[in-house]
Amino acid sequence: MTHNTKDKKLWGGRFAEATDSLVELFNASVSFDQRLYEQDIRGSLAHVAMLGRVDILSAEEVTAITDGLNAVLDDIRAGNFEWRLDREDVHMNIEAALRDRIGPVAGKLHTARSRNDQVALDFRLFTKEAALDLAAQTRALRAFMVSEAERALEAGVILPGYTHLQVAQPILLAHWFMAYAAMLERDEGRFLDAAARMDESPLGSSALAGTPWPIDRHTVAVALGFARPTANSLDGVGSRDFALEFLSACAILSAHLSRLSEELILYSTFEFGFLTLPDSHTTGSSIMPQKKNPDVSELARGKAGRVFGNLMGLLTVVKGTPLAYNKDLQEDKEGVFDSYDTLSIVLRLYADMLPKCEWHAEKTREAAARGYSTATDVADFLARQGVPFREAHEVVGGLVGVASRSGRQLWELTDEELQAAHPLLNAEVAASLTVEESVKSRLSYGGTAPRRVREAVDAAKARLGLGVEE
Amino acid sequence: MTHNTKDKKLWGGRFAEATDSLVELFNASVSFDQRLYEQDIRGSLAHVAMLGRVDILSAEEVTAITDGLNAVLDDIRAGNFEWRLDREDVHMNIEAALRDRIGPVAGKLHTARSRNDQVALDFRLFTKEAALDLAAQTRALRAFMVSEAERALEAGVILPGYTHLQVAQPILLAHWFMAYAAMLERDEGRFLDAAARMDESPLGSSALAGTPWPIDRHTVAVALGFARPTANSLDGVGSRDFALEFLSACAILSAHLSRLSEELILYSTFEFGFLTLPDSHTTGSSIMPQKKNPDVSELARGKAGRVFGNLMGLLTVVKGTPLAYNKDLQEDKEGVFDSYDTLSIVLRLYADMLPKCEWHAEKTREAAARGYSTATDVADFLARQGVPFREAHEVVGGLVGVASRSGRQLWELTDEELQAAHPLLNAEVAASLTVEESVKSRLSYGGTAPRRVREAVDAAKARLGLGVEE
Amino acid sequence: MTHNTKDKKLWGGRFAEATDSLVELFNASVSFDQRLYEQDIRGSLAHVAMLGRVDILSAEEVTAITDGLNAVLDDIRAGNFEWRLDREDVHMNIEAALRDRIGPVAGKLHTARSRNDQVALDFRLFTKEAALDLAAQTRALRAFMVSEAERALEAGVILPGYTHLQVAQPILLAHWFMAYAAMLERDEGRFLDAAARMDESPLGSSALAGTPWPIDRHTVAVALGFARPTANSLDGVGSRDFALEFLSACAILSAHLSRLSEELILYSTFEFGFLTLPDSHTTGSSIMPQKKNPDVSELARGKAGRVFGNLMGLLTVVKGTPLAYNKDLQEDKEGVFDSYDTLSIVLRLYADMLPKCEWHAEKTREAAARGYSTATDVADFLARQGVPFREAHEVVGGLVGVASRSGRQLWELTDEELQAAHPLLNAEVAASLTVEESVKSRLSYGGTAPRRVREAVDAAKARLGLGVEE
Amino acid sequence: MTHNTKDKKLWGGRFAEATDSLVELFNASVSFDQRLYEQDIRGSLAHVAMLGRVDILSAEEVTAITDGLNAVLDDIRAGNFEWRLDREDVHMNIEAALRDRIGPVAGKLHTARSRNDQVALDFRLFTKEAALDLAAQTRALRAFMVSEAERALEAGVILPGYTHLQVAQPILLAHWFMAYAAMLERDEGRFLDAAARMDESPLGSSALAGTPWPIDRHTVAVALGFARPTANSLDGVGSRDFALEFLSACAILSAHLSRLSEELILYSTFEFGFLTLPDSHTTGSSIMPQKKNPDVSELARGKAGRVFGNLMGLLTVVKGTPLAYNKDLQEDKEGVFDSYDTLSIVLRLYADMLPKCEWHAEKTREAAARGYSTATDVADFLARQGVPFREAHEVVGGLVGVASRSGRQLWELTDEELQAAHPLLNAEVAASLTVEESVKSRLSYGGTAPRRVREAVDAAKARLGLGVEE
Repeated sequence: MTHNTKDKKLWGGRFAEATDSLVELFNASVSFDQRLYEQDIRGSLAHVAMLGRVDILSAEEVTAITDGLNAVLDDIRAGNFEWRLDREDVHMNIEAALRDRIGPVAGKLHTARSRNDQVALDFRLFTKEAALDLAAQTRALRAFMVSEAERALEAGVILPGYTHLQVAQPILLAHWFMAYAAMLERDEGRFLDAAARMDESPLGSSALAGTPWPIDRHTVAVALGFARPTANSLDGVGSRDFALEFLSACAILSAHLSRLSEELILYSTFEFGFLTLPDSHTTGSSIMPQKKNPDVSELARGKAGRVFGNLMGLLTVVKGTPLAYNKDLQEDKEGVFDSYDTLSIVLRLYADMLPKCEWHAEKTREAAARGYSTATDVADFLARQGVPFREAHEVVGGLVGVASRSGRQLWELTDEELQAAHPLLNAEVAASLTVEESVKSRLSYGGTAPRRVREAVDAAKARLGLGVEE
Repeated sequence: MTHNTKDKKLWGGRFAEATDSLVELFNASVSFDQRLYEQDIRGSLAHVAMLGRVDILSAEEVTAITDGLNAVLDDIRAGNFEWRLDREDVHMNIEAALRDRIGPVAGKLHTARSRNDQVALDFRLFTKEAALDLAAQTRALRAFMVSEAERALEAGVILPGYTHLQVAQPILLAHWFMAYAAMLERDEGRFLDAAARMDESPLGSSALAGTPWPIDRHTVAVALGFARPTANSLDGVGSRDFALEFLSACAILSAHLSRLSEELILYSTFEFGFLTLPDSHTTGSSIMPQKKNPDVSELARGKAGRVFGNLMGLLTVVKGTPLAYNKDLQEDKEGVFDSYDTLSIVLRLYADMLPKCEWHAEKTREAAARGYSTATDVADFLARQGVPFREAHEVVGGLVGVASRSGRQLWELTDEELQAAHPLLNAEVAASLTVEESVKSRLSYGGTAPRRVREAVDAAKARLGLGVEE
Repeated sequence: MTHNTKDKKLWGGRFAEATDSLVELFNASVSFDQRLYEQDIRGSLAHVAMLGRVDILSAEEVTAITDGLNAVLDDIRAGNFEWRLDREDVHMNIEAALRDRIGPVAGKLHTARSRNDQVALDFRLFTKEAALDLAAQTRALRAFMVSEAERALEAGVILPGYTHLQVAQPILLAHWFMAYAAMLERDEGRFLDAAARMDESPLGSSALAGTPWPIDRHTVAVALGFARPTANSLDGVGSRDFALEFLSACAILSAHLSRLSEELILYSTFEFGFLTLPDSHTTGSSIMPQKKNPDVSELARGKAGRVFGNLMGLLTVVKGTPLAYNKDLQEDKEGVFDSYDTLSIVLRLYADMLPKCEWHAEKTREAAARGYSTATDVADFLARQGVPFREAHEVVGGLVGVASRSGRQLWELTDEELQAAHPLLNAEVAASLTVEESVKSRLSYGGTAPRRVREAVDAAKARLGLGVEE
Repeated sequence: MTHNTKDKKLWGGRFAEATDSLVELFNASVSFDQRLYEQDIRGSLAHVAMLGRVDILSAEEVTAITDGLNAVLDDIRAGNFEWRLDREDVHMNIEAALRDRIGPVAGKLHTARSRNDQVALDFRLFTKEAALDLAAQTRALRAFMVSEAERALEAGVILPGYTHLQVAQPILLAHWFMAYAAMLERDEGRFLDAAARMDESPLGSSALAGTPWPIDRHTVAVALGFARPTANSLDGVGSRDFALEFLSACAILSAHLSRLSEELILYSTFEFGFLTLPDSHTTGSSIMPQKKNPDVSELARGKAGRVFGNLMGLLTVVKGTPLAYNKDLQEDKEGVFDSYDTLSIVLRLYADMLPKCEWHAEKTREAAARGYSTATDVADFLARQGVPFREAHEVVGGLVGVASRSGRQLWELTDEELQAAHPLLNAEVAASLTVEESVKSRLSYGGTAPRRVREAVDAAKARLGLGVEE
């Protein structure tokens, strides 16, 4: 809700003419940057406390401004605050409200700072918190992945492993969960690295060159939870790589979630039939009574688009802009807000939904078995008997051709057919090469053998600080 | 404003469990697709009229539904409508409100259609109107460009023409305006082509396969202002290339506006000093009293980012999705809305601002003169005397080197220096090669000579349907 | 192959120092713009002919240059041409080769033009031809789609229609082909519109301002196959929206091809089993003997990435650059070349591959039947008996729930179960609602009923200029 | 150079029909992945050594294969290697060459691995090395920035500081250099973090599930310089976030370089006149003899487009692909190669060019002085005398208005004018507020005062391991 009664612009001294009202609407950022009010007031409180400490403001002034800011904060939180478009942005709205409440002394709050470092501070506080929060949420979803992996491991569920969406080799469903856990672990790392790299307070950079006032930037930085102040004032107000890095981490996480979504959509089709999604996380059709649509996964997949778009958008904005601040940079916030909100909801929905999914172990096992997924094992059997792998590969390729043209599985071939392919093969051999044996055999580090997956789950739980079962 | 009191889902038949409330929030599109209420009700009115005409509904039913829809429309327009999140989208909200108002007969409105073709219709109506509107606005801005060109032509304002942002040759300011007019004319063409290509009604495609009801899609299409119905039902509900084409046209227009913005920002710097922007379209600084910031142009330049991002976002969404409708496609709207709103305001602001800009003709002329912009004319002079152009080019290049190293202009070189460079050169020749003469000489079609620019302005006015001065 | 023996730069007059060799490598475009040699020489031939006609050059000069250019062209075509990096670009390489061959008169070729309009011409010629060629190729692929549709129509192949990748309603495979034909038809339109909009010759714009030489741009334009010359010289050399529009059309076509690819990949999985791809268009695995990978479709889907990237790349390049030419614009070509090459090969491969695909009609029919795809028909049956559609929808939703929980199809439900759901239902009714009846019933315009699809195929063939069967 | 004589496909067992030759061309990656030959052979050498150690291969086999691989490597390095298209990719080309050289034993090299983990290894080795190399190059450019900063600091060069491209406050040129040094330092950090996160060997993941062979992945990982093997085989072969993270870091670095480029282009215009670029890094015009174009900076700015495009391209490719490997992923390499090559050359060119740029200290000082850049200082002067800052701001804003309307500087205003604005102001005060005083006064941490910049330079040199001057 914005209001248009105008008061004098705080920067209007040199202007002969009023701002055009459409320009005002275009320039104003309060419709979206009001979201930063907590960060803005937190920053102002730290600033004013420091101004008192270094004797730029008197104790009385500090108290008046501090109390006033806290009162404004209470008003906003309580919904008793009128955001005014003619006051442009979150900063001007809050400062004007402070002045309305405590009078001209409010003007002293802006000593030794500028809107340039103020917005850089607010936005950096937000983005750092968003990065840390997405790191935590990514970690939480990872914990669910690991826990689902453990459940699937105990149940011994076998899934066809795919390459090119063609059945390749049987794997454990637990192994599949652990693959996503690995991706999410790196995603968490990216958010944490980004948060660490942006952990600097730009406040005190002032307009672009620093300030002559004898301020103490270090204590303000620490008070706001930053590791240190930024070391160059031009960079402090003019750089937005922290937001770009955040958006990059968001885009990569979105790509991972889009892959997970694609697989859940596929696996819950009638044709695959591996998975029943919970009613709570699917919807129906207004016309087709039988439909049960995997909306959450579809939207999660589609929302990669907006996150990629947000990254592309801000890269475009920054490209070719001279130092230090340009108004273009006002375009930095919405994409960050939107990406954060989007990923927050997707991560939470997946954390809710995954444990409610019902996997159909007999279907996944059957699919793994039927898709010639053990052909590599037959070739490996021959290779271990001394047949060069390339020859073994060709023998088995021929058998798959015979079998698939006649709609049979490898173990349904006759002894004659098998021996015609290679004397070392027969029905007994074919029968022994089950998907379970195949899975068990893949004992290389990182492989899908239950023993390896058990170790991987235990190690993942340890890294997550979760107790490992004895 | 949305509300959460739930009523039964219209698709709930096969579901044993309620939808998770976070899922509901995630899936619901009413927060943004409510914007399509006019299109939605217009579509429903045309649909119900047709259902009556082909005797699927009785005259009484048609009247009841029609009156009900109009009443709902009035409510929404008057702000007396509660958009409910649990009713998911604009369609369900309106249908439920209709049922609240006229009872179960409301259910007959949805005969022979599905939300899939309904949303495809609404969104296509919106996008087509947006394309036509941006075409008209682009045309309007072009008219301002042409009118400014005419004014600048009459005033004889000379501008340095740049390549590589280095002064290249003098041009008319009018010619510069006409370059942007040419770009905008093609932009208009792109919007019109896109509108023509999407000028088909998808209504009646139903869920994806058409409907057994004996509907008449052609009259509905015509009633809604479309040229014809779509010819394939899968395509009708599943394609979004119309939105992609719209966004592409938006992105290209944004690129053009970003170039214009860049030039206005440059030209209004202290260093260039060519242009004073109107106070009404600039803002100041809260800390630096002297600042007069070209915010409108900076934001317009920056906003290219969001428009490019919107295009990238929807391309990503569509990539790799199977036919026909997928929930991912719900992500199609916000980028179109945002691009339309963004460009509407930028086009309007530029149309307002351009005529208020004050160009400083003496500064632009001086800049053109000082930047060695007539060097090509000196070379051309020599070439016309029979000196091979490559040699002439080298002679003049050498003179520019001499002049620039001593901080002088070409006409400030001595006779001795000139003749040392080439015997055909002397101070008289140098003096005759003014920027005015240079401009006048460029008489090739499309060139910057006043006669050519006059013809270009007249032709542009004729194409715009504006009277050409006698 | 490039060579580094240097000759004097044609623009070196004012320079005291040589170009750094790494700079030379960085600036040089000859490694990729040599591809434009045909366009470059064609443009030069038209230019020199015109210079003769307007008496800027003598007949002898024209002959010498023309013969020289043709000889250079022959050399390049024959592979007897050394592209030299120190000659920077295709233009300088050709002009220098001309000079090597015919001596100083070669220098007269560059009269009244600049590299700025020369490259704008070459690149526009290429892009226009590429647009027309992709239009033709898109049309050719469409013809295959229509022809496959006709074949599938005659064979009566039924496919499950999907929404949300869940079986929705049965459709004809022919209808599915026609959906892609519809998309490709619009894609062709976009290429043709783009080609028409860029159908203007920039030659004669010279560096940026036009030229004092009495050239005739119109006849040159016509000689080069353009509709007309560009009307503004700044715009002629500085605009690249023609390339952006081309890339946008490419990106949208790529999105369509990625959807087709996704469906072919899905349909050829073991789980769907609808389709066998030809051995000629699939590959195997070096380790898994059974694999038959849909590489062509996967790559075609993946290549959407590079085309989207090319579009985003050029949008970024153009963003915020001032008029007229900037060196940034040299980055315009590779993305256009790459997108053209990529789509050319994908279109051709699909045109080759589609007729060789083997559809398994019994599997697609069975999948359609099993997926409760006729549930809407049951609801429609009830609705036609007077049951309000919303109630009918709920009744059938309940039946699907009962059936799916017990692993049965709708027609496998007992009379008791059916009548418990609704008294109008019984086994006979359920049995009558086959997928064939469902398909036949969807007679609305654009629907999947065979009659409608036959009409659509005939109309499509007529638009393609193909004979319609009697 | 590729050749088409075909030998039997290594995966051809199950195939009845030959691969279409256009398909072969489309699928083949050897035209670009041959670049990975060093990584491929290095990986094979480590693999075969391990196979020997764990007794899968005999010592003789290991020796034969090792010697063969080294011989192939020598051939490739010496240019004596024929890359064949029908051998598809770098792996098959090298393995086939090995077989040609040492016979069937070559086939044993592929034991316990697949092309999936092989390409994942090669590409990860390349990308990690590229990341480390760009980190080092970024660091080297930073060292030049710091060194230029030091030189500019010692020379006391003053630059106008800009916001909105309007003169804001005077700064030290050294401070401007240090702002870019700060950005580059974070860019280096991003490359290092990316390299650390991808520091895992995927070899031994085999096709997707691990292998039954008793391999030792840890020693192979260490032998190849990795910290450890990947912990999940599906993730090892199917993930490409390492490439996405690399491209993100490239895109952000490109954005920074585009900003630097924009400023250098602006500062070297005639209008700004701050900077003369070295002849070695600029070029001229073939038509305009006076031109000296900042091509390097323009291209560097434009090349942000291709890097952004590469990132968008790979994000698109990865979006929505199921696990594990899909052929789409073959599209991952070219964008990484291109981004690496592009940034390598830009970083090197800037490192070469920056020390050769000639800054015009008198012009930059004058521009700073003339642009009312000390207006904040006047306001601060008043504020320190007790005038509320908001009032002081308005007073000075008014004075700037008076001065700019009459084309004067603040210190050219009369005593009367100054005192009319505020009694505390007079000519003496105005005169004392020089740009030097302004710069000196900004002593806040990170500010532009010489003392602070000296400290910043010293700290930067220490972090770079450069000696700090005593």
